Amino acid sequence: MAEIKGIGGLDQAYDGSNLKIGIIYARWNKEIIDSLVSGAIKNLKKLNVKKENILIESVPGSFELPFATKKFFNNNSDLNAIISIGVLIKGSTMHFEYISNAVTLELMSLQKIIDIPIIFGLLTCLTEDQAKIRSGLVLPNDKNHATHNHGEDWGSAAVEMAIKFIYN
Amino acid sequence: MAEIKGIGGLDQAYDGSNLKIGIIYARWNKEIIDSLVSGAIKNLKKLNVKKENILIESVPGSFELPFATKKFFNNNSDLNAIISIGVLIKGSTMHFEYISNAVTLELMSLQKIIDIPIIFGLLTCLTEDQAKIRSGLVLPNDKNHATHNHGEDWGSAAVEMAIKFIYN
Amino acid sequence: MAEIKGIGGLDQAYDGSNLKIGIIYARWNKEIIDSLVSGAIKNLKKLNVKKENILIESVPGSFELPFATKKFFNNNSDLNAIISIGVLIKGSTMHFEYISNAVTLELMSLQKIIDIPIIFGLLTCLTEDQAKIRSGLVLPNDKNHATHNHGEDWGSAAVEMAIKFIYN
Amino acid sequence: MAEIKGIGGLDQAYDGSNLKIGIIYARWNKEIIDSLVSGAIKNLKKLNVKKENILIESVPGSFELPFATKKFFNNNSDLNAIISIGVLIKGSTMHFEYISNAVTLELMSLQKIIDIPIIFGLLTCLTEDQAKIRSGLVLPNDKNHATHNHGEDWGSAAVEMAIKFIYN
Amino acid sequence: MAEIKGIGGLDQAYDGSNLKIGIIYARWNKEIIDSLVSGAIKNLKKLNVKKENILIESVPGSFELPFATKKFFNNNSDLNAIISIGVLIKGSTMHFEYISNAVTLELMSLQKIIDIPIIFGLLTCLTEDQAKIRSGLVLPNDKNHATHNHGEDWGSAAVEMAIKFIYN
Repeated sequence: MAEIKGIGGLDQAYDGSNLKIGIIYARWNKEIIDSLVSGAIKNLKKLNVKKENILIESVPGSFELPFATKKFFNNNSDLNAIISIGVLIKGSTMHFEYISNAVTLELMSLQKIIDIPIIFGLLTCLTEDQAKIRSGLVLPNDKNHATHNHGEDWGSAAVEMAIKFIYN
Repeated sequence: MAEIKGIGGLDQAYDGSNLKIGIIYARWNKEIIDSLVSGAIKNLKKLNVKKENILIESVPGSFELPFATKKFFNNNSDLNAIISIGVLIKGSTMHFEYISNAVTLELMSLQKIIDIPIIFGLLTCLTEDQAKIRSGLVLPNDKNHATHNHGEDWGSAAVEMAIKFIYN
Repeated sequence: MAEIKGIGGLDQAYDGSNLKIGIIYARWNKEIIDSLVSGAIKNLKKLNVKKENILIESVPGSFELPFATKKFFNNNSDLNAIISIGVLIKGSTMHFEYISNAVTLELMSLQKIIDIPIIFGLLTCLTEDQAKIRSGLVLPNDKNHATHNHGEDWGSAAVEMAIKFIYN
Repeated sequence: MAEIKGIGGLDQAYDGSNLKIGIIYARWNKEIIDSLVSGAIKNLKKLNVKKENILIESVPGSFELPFATKKFFNNNSDLNAIISIGVLIKGSTMHFEYISNAVTLELMSLQKIIDIPIIFGLLTCLTEDQAKIRSGLVLPNDKNHATHNHGEDWGSAAVEMAIKFIYN
Repeated sequence: MAEIKGIGGLDQAYDGSNLKIGIIYARWNKEIIDSLVSGAIKNLKKLNVKKENILIESVPGSFELPFATKKFFNNNSDLNAIISIGVLIKGSTMHFEYISNAVTLELMSLQKIIDIPIIFGLLTCLTEDQAKIRSGLVLPNDKNHATHNHGEDWGSAAVEMAIKFIYN
C-alpha cells in the first residue's frame, strides 16, 4: 500500500501505563476474531498498558456488541477506552447490511453516553478472505497475499484516544 | 458450514434457572415464526429457564416489534432479556427495506432505555426459502438442504447476555 | 397469497368500544389515500370503535406525518393509538428514498415519546399500480388483479396494539 | 400530471395574517434556490402572511441547514414554521448520498426539539435539469417542458401546518 | 464549473478577529488531509481569525472524528465552530459505506449537543483522484485537471456560521 492510502501510525509517543482498556468481541468467525483480539492486545502492551489493566469479554454475535459495550463500561467505570470487535461477512440474506449499519451507528452514538472512546473494531466484509487479510491471517490459496492485522491499529488508537481526550 | 463461518456455541455453561425471559413475535409468515419461537423456547429450557418464567406475546407485524418490546418490559419489569422475533421477506415494493432498517435500528437503540439485552430475532430474507432454511424447516423442493433453527441460538444468547450483563 | 406469506388476522377477538383512535394522512395520491383511510375506518368500526372516537386529520405530504402525529397526540392526549397514512411513489429524483427512510424512522422513534402505538400506514411503492393493489383499488388495465386494502389491517392492528399494550 | 400523482392543494382556506414564518436556504445552485425561495414567499403572501413577518436567512451549504434552522428558531422563538431550502445534485463522489440522508433525517428529527413544523425544502436530484423542473425554471434545451415551482407548495404547507398544529 | 453548480462564495464580508475556531482531522490519506487543513487555515486567516485562535488536533481515523469533536469542544468551550476533516476512499469491503454514514450522521447530530456549528469536512470519495481534485492537489497523470481545495470553503463557512448564529 502506498502511504497515502494508509494510516501513518501514531502522531507521537504514548505511554499507556496508567490506562485501563476494555476489549469486547463477538464470537462469530472465531479464527479471525482471535487474531484481531491478539493484535489489539499486542499493541496495547507495546504502549505500556499493563496486562492486568486489559479487560476482555465476549458476546455471541455482533448485534450484542453495543449493549455489551455499554454494560461493560457501567460495570467497570474506570475504563479509559473500549475496543469493540466483530466480524461480519455478507451472506445471502440482507442480515449483513442491517446488522452492520445498526452496530456501526450504535457504537458511534454510545460514545455520547459513556463519554469514553469506543474503538470501532467491526470488519464488514464481502468475503471471508477480505476478513482474513484484515486480521493478519495467511490466505490458504494465496499465501503471498499481503495482510495486515487491523487489531494492532485498534490497540494503538485506544491508547491515543484515551490519553488525548480522557486521561489527561 | 465450516467452523469459521458460524457461531461456536456458548463460551461457558450457563444456568438460567433464576431468569425471566420474554419472547415477542410478529405473526406474519406463521409457519416460520412458529418454528423460530419453538427453537428459542427449546434452548431456554435446555439452559434451565423455567417454563413459567418464559413470557410470550405477539403483535401483528414487524413494525410493531420495537414498541411492543418496550411496553412488554414496562409491564414486566423483572424480565432479564427479551427475544424479538419477526420474519421479513422482500416483496415488490420497498416496504421490506424501510421496515427492516427501522426495526433493526429501534431494537438496537431501545436497549439503552430498558437496559436489558434485546436478542435480535428478525430474519431479513430475500426469499421464503431463505427464511425456512434459517428456521430449521424442510424445503419442499429440496428436502436435503441443510437448515438451522436460529431461534435456538437466540434462546442461548438471551441466557448468556442476561447472566453476563444483567443478572449477576 | 399462500398463508405463509401473509398476516393471519387477529390472534383473538378485540372489543374497541372504549378506545379513541386517531388517523392522520398525507393528501398526495388522493384516490389511493381515500381508499386506505376508508379501509382503516371500516375495521375500526368492525371492532366496535365508536364513530365519534375516530379522529381524522390531514397534512400536505408524507414528510409532515411524524410532526403531525406528535402534535395530534399532544392535542388529544386520550388517543390510544394513531394510524399514520401516506403514499410515496418512486419518481425520477431521490426524493422518494430520503423521505421514505426519514418518515419510517421518525414514526418508529416517536412511539418512545408519545408512548402509544403508531400504526405504520406508509406505502413505499415503485409504481402507482403497486399502491393501488395495496389499497384495494381496481387496476384499470388489469381488472382481475387481486388487491387487498392494507388500511383494513391497520385498523385492526390499532385496536389490538392499543388493547394489548395501552388500554388494559 | 394526472391528479393521482400530485398534491391536491390545500384542504381548506387558511389565513396566515397572524403568522411569522422563517425561510432558511443554502446558497449552492443559486438560480434554482432563488426561484424556490421566491415561490415560497409568493404563496406565503397569497395566504396573507405579512412581508415583515417573513424572516429570511442563508447558509453556505445544505449540511448547514439543520443547525441553522435550530438556531434561527432559538433567535426568533415567535416563528410558527420554518421552511428549510437546499438543492443537492448528484456528483461523482458519494457526498450527495450522505449529505442528503443526514440533512433529511436531522430536519425531521429537529421538529421534536423546536416543536414547530419544518417544511422540507430540500431537492435531492440526480441532474440539474431535474432541479430546474422542480423550481419552475425553463429548461434551455427543452423550453416546452412542464415545470412546477415546489417552493410555492412549501409556502402553502408552512401556513397550513402552523395553523393546524401550532397557532390555534 | 458553471456558477449554478457551485457555491457563490460568502454572502457578505465577515470579520473573524474575535473568533476561536477548532480544526480536528483524521490522519488517513495524509497528503490530501494536509492540503485540506492548510486550505481551511488559509481562509480562516483571510477572514482575520488570529493564528493563536486556531486550535488543531488529530485522530487516527474518521470514525474517531465525532467523539473527538465533542471532547475537543468540552475541553475548549470557548470555540465558536469546529471543522472536522477526514478523507474516506471506497475500498473492497463495505467499511467505507458504514463509516461514511455513521460519521456524517453523528457530526450532524452532535451540533444539537455542543450548540456550535460543525463544518463537515469529510470527503467520501470513490477514488483517490476524486479526493485529490477536491483538495487542490495536482493529479500526477492529468496535470491540467482543474482542482479546488474544499478546505478553503470550510474555513470560510466556519467564520460565517459562527458569526451568524453564535458569536453575535
